[in-house]
Amino acid sequence: MSQINRVLLVGGTHGNELIGVYIIQKFERYPKLVQRSSFETVMLLGNPRAVVANTRYIDRDLNRCFAFSADDPRAKTEYELQRAHEIQQEFGQVGHRPVDLVIDLHGTTSNVGVMLILDNLEPFTLQLASHLSAIQPNIKVYSSANSGRNQDSLRSITPYRMGIEVGPVAHGTLHAGLFQSTEQLVQSILSYVDHYNQGLAPVQPSPLSAYQYVGSIDYPRDDQNHLLAMIHPQLQFNDFAALTPGDPIFLSLDGQIISYQGDAVVYPVFINEAAYYEKGVAMVLTQQKTYDFE
Amino acid sequence: MSQINRVLLVGGTHGNELIGVYIIQKFERYPKLVQRSSFETVMLLGNPRAVVANTRYIDRDLNRCFAFSADDPRAKTEYELQRAHEIQQEFGQVGHRPVDLVIDLHGTTSNVGVMLILDNLEPFTLQLASHLSAIQPNIKVYSSANSGRNQDSLRSITPYRMGIEVGPVAHGTLHAGLFQSTEQLVQSILSYVDHYNQGLAPVQPSPLSAYQYVGSIDYPRDDQNHLLAMIHPQLQFNDFAALTPGDPIFLSLDGQIISYQGDAVVYPVFINEAAYYEKGVAMVLTQQKTYDFE
Repeated sequence: MSQINRVLLVGGTHGNELIGVYIIQKFERYPKLVQRSSFETVMLLGNPRAVVANTRYIDRDLNRCFAFSADDPRAKTEYELQRAHEIQQEFGQVGHRPVDLVIDLHGTTSNVGVMLILDNLEPFTLQLASHLSAIQPNIKVYSSANSGRNQDSLRSITPYRMGIEVGPVAHGTLHAGLFQSTEQLVQSILSYVDHYNQGLAPVQPSPLSAYQYVGSIDYPRDDQNHLLAMIHPQLQFNDFAALTPGDPIFLSLDGQIISYQGDAVVYPVFINEAAYYEKGVAMVLTQQKTYDFE
Repeated sequence: MSQINRVLLVGGTHGNELIGVYIIQKFERYPKLVQRSSFETVMLLGNPRAVVANTRYIDRDLNRCFAFSADDPRAKTEYELQRAHEIQQEFGQVGHRPVDLVIDLHGTTSNVGVMLILDNLEPFTLQLASHLSAIQPNIKVYSSANSGRNQDSLRSITPYRMGIEVGPVAHGTLHAGLFQSTEQLVQSILSYVDHYNQGLAPVQPSPLSAYQYVGSIDYPRDDQNHLLAMIHPQLQFNDFAALTPGDPIFLSLDGQIISYQGDAVVYPVFINEAAYYEKGVAMVLTQQKTYDFE
């Protein structure tokens, strides 16, 4: 990529993830905070109707709507499919105001702390993630590149993109510490982009250490889809810790320990994320990996 | 009260407070767990449509619906008003199966730990709360008797009642530790009632130490009702700690500390409860108090 001319900063892709919603509102009130000399920053509230309703989505998860065909008949009735089309037409690669980089702000009930989500392993993004990790060593980097999710998310409107996921924070609430961490990270990204445009971006040594998606596990359920077990107390809020075959993973409602049956050590993330109950995901499993980008 | 013949155990009064929902499902699957020789235990899912939708309520908070007149015109269109009427007709004092005691299970995003909610200061309830505090000293007791809430809640169908509130737990999630604490508390209550009916209930020395409702504080907001500040990091998850005039209470979105302006020490609870954003409550203020009941 030669130059970044327009950055799209998105909050409220999920309407009840309030940290992103309020960061967008703050920057709309104080636009100078996100102004840089070498590019334009555009703020977007992803799902305004869901924000008003204080819910993740109205008809369908907006962050799974960007692979639908424009003439899919459901686009006539479902709000998020219409909204995805609007966003695509405005900011997509052949849109009115195409963007070069999307930063999408999310919150989770899981204890991920401050986590970067990479949807692909494109060199600019790896270099940026590596820079952010260097200046804020407590950040975790998660690659969803092989999760199948890089085609249907809001971020997929451009190849250059990053998700910021912070937690634990209950949906429908703010959390001052995580709000400030998110805002600081956005500022670091915008400053990096400004330096990049001027050929002054600090070059990080390769490789980048990250957690790579390898799969997910659902809760044990009965034939009515009700849960039969909960995250085991040892695993609750223990995102990014090693889970070894045989370790406790669930506690059944009647008190039985269910242990992890995999055949290798994994590092679970998104443990007990509220919005993933309906998606059949009790946790996402990752492996530690290093990425070369030179 | 001479004898308790029927206990109503309620979960899912708020459909996304999953601990109560799943405790009811567990006891419906294993009814022997809540059988006692001297009374009948009835399980009730308070708001089944909200449980299916995984939301607090459909049209209106069910736990604010029990003071409506049966011929209120809104009862024709609003689900929760109809549901409140149904529950009243089935379990109310002049209902088909009147209950003598209601135990209502709730979860909160606040760090209340395991908290008993007393709606009135009736001697049986004070004696029960005192017994539970004696056997589980980490329990907190909160009296909402002077909050104005004792007329419109589901529990108001009978004078003998108790709320159990556990947290922090994100709405729409289970939490194994708090699930087990809630279940254990329900068992202790049922066993106490059984002993009470047989004249064998242990008598606790008066008085009972509790936290009494004295008011609430809303978030600073703009004229569109958007928040201008968040709970200050020092106060977040610090329920039941003393808040002294001048202490930080909010952090504005632009980083200013807002301090508590009251004129006396208070003990905030329900700090940053997700469902109270729309009710204009950032936290409930309490004072420590002792209740005589002999």
